[in-house]
Amino acid sequence: MRALSFNQATAKYWPLADVVKGCAAADVRHVGLWREPVAEYGLGRALSLVRDAGLSVTSLCRGGFFGADDWHDDNRRALDEAAELGAPALVLVCGGLFGRTLSEARARVAAGLEALAPHALDVGVTLAVEPMHPMFCADRSVVATLAGALDLCAPFPPEAVGITLDTYHVWWDEQVLPLIGANGDRIACFQLADWVVPLPEDVLVGRGLPGTGHVDFAPLVEAVLATGYDRPIEVEVFNAGLWARPGEEVLRDTVTAYTSVMGMASSAG
Amino acid sequence: MRALSFNQATAKYWPLADVVKGCAAADVRHVGLWREPVAEYGLGRALSLVRDAGLSVTSLCRGGFFGADDWHDDNRRALDEAAELGAPALVLVCGGLFGRTLSEARARVAAGLEALAPHALDVGVTLAVEPMHPMFCADRSVVATLAGALDLCAPFPPEAVGITLDTYHVWWDEQVLPLIGANGDRIACFQLADWVVPLPEDVLVGRGLPGTGHVDFAPLVEAVLATGYDRPIEVEVFNAGLWARPGEEVLRDTVTAYTSVMGMASSAG
Repeated sequence: MRALSFNQATAKYWPLADVVKGCAAADVRHVGLWREPVAEYGLGRALSLVRDAGLSVTSLCRGGFFGADDWHDDNRRALDEAAELGAPALVLVCGGLFGRTLSEARARVAAGLEALAPHALDVGVTLAVEPMHPMFCADRSVVATLAGALDLCAPFPPEAVGITLDTYHVWWDEQVLPLIGANGDRIACFQLADWVVPLPEDVLVGRGLPGTGHVDFAPLVEAVLATGYDRPIEVEVFNAGLWARPGEEVLRDTVTAYTSVMGMASSAG
Repeated sequence: MRALSFNQATAKYWPLADVVKGCAAADVRHVGLWREPVAEYGLGRALSLVRDAGLSVTSLCRGGFFGADDWHDDNRRALDEAAELGAPALVLVCGGLFGRTLSEARARVAAGLEALAPHALDVGVTLAVEPMHPMFCADRSVVATLAGALDLCAPFPPEAVGITLDTYHVWWDEQVLPLIGANGDRIACFQLADWVVPLPEDVLVGRGLPGTGHVDFAPLVEAVLATGYDRPIEVEVFNAGLWARPGEEVLRDTVTAYTSVMGMASSAG
């Protein structure tokens, strides 16, 4: 079965050192990291911690927010941090409207990618545009579909600009399976999370562990693996209930959920 | 300026007789009606009420829910009711997964349309498939994009199966403007509502009057009118705050919002 990467946001309040120790103990060899906890721990220390435990970093989250004033410098720093950690992908949450029209805001994302792509190539980290669920279009990401994300990638080589594909954000889109098939070289990071109803008051934190909601994972996993995607698969779940629980339990349940969902895919890598 | 049609769901608890009286007094000559309040008042009485006030009915809401056991008979009845009221369109909320996969659930919608299309033609009412925001895909409508809705329409003449286009549901979709342009003959009902953030706890009732949120109305209105769409435009807003207010005030604010938003479109019909 394709290796799991545990994205630390799934156990948001679990200290980084414990995440790494817990993953190593559970034989989970890969982690997805976030900039804030890494910065808090110290970038150099975090790198040593992960290396000493024999783990690899599958992604760093997040760059993007191209509507913000400091987008350029902040994204350059984020690329540098990802490179330092050996993460192949910087997850980009591209930002909402920032008072602009959709087409203006999307043009700003395109311009941002163009400005950053050379540095991404220099440091060997892919800018991994994450199409986010359309319910976040106004305030978090004007990139709301895989098709739209791929349009943004098109001018650049796949090593410079690719996709973060999260099942939570794209499961509803009938164009996703064929688009995955036709654009496998763009997938820099593949993440699993489930869609649970009813949505909670804060829709940002209502995702579910794979298998607890309505996403039909097998076709998505099979489509991604069929493209030759050869990286670990992340589980990244924002859920207030999970965050209230001990990290060890969350990791254990994540491994169980991942194993179960991957077992339903006919070609689980 | 293109005429406004006041969808009664915007003032959900305003009695039907008051809606009709209020619209006539405000010189709003068109209404969108819902089956439940019409049934409560009596279909025949409702028809007399509307006719006597000199109003037209632009749509009846709602059929659909093709995953439900009684979908066939219920949708036939809904078509008959729409015909009786002189409504040219029956709005279809097609239903969520009902425990099926997305493709199974969508196939069920397609089969339902095929079964109902002859009766729709017989009674002269268009089955108006409403693409709903993807955040409703699991539980309310597996038809989550205009492209997907148009695929469902394709086998049928436009008089039998068309689209209800609601800005609230589609504003985030970069494919919408070109798809409107290429498929004007499919638009059976055009509705305005705005996207407001943050979303409330019950995401069903968090819409805004046009101009209070993030939707860029002018390009959407212009695109629809450019296709030759010649019907009134509905304002339909589900909002718990609006519903708590007196109907007369809601209607007055709706007229103001509509006039303002339409004034920004360069070709407001």
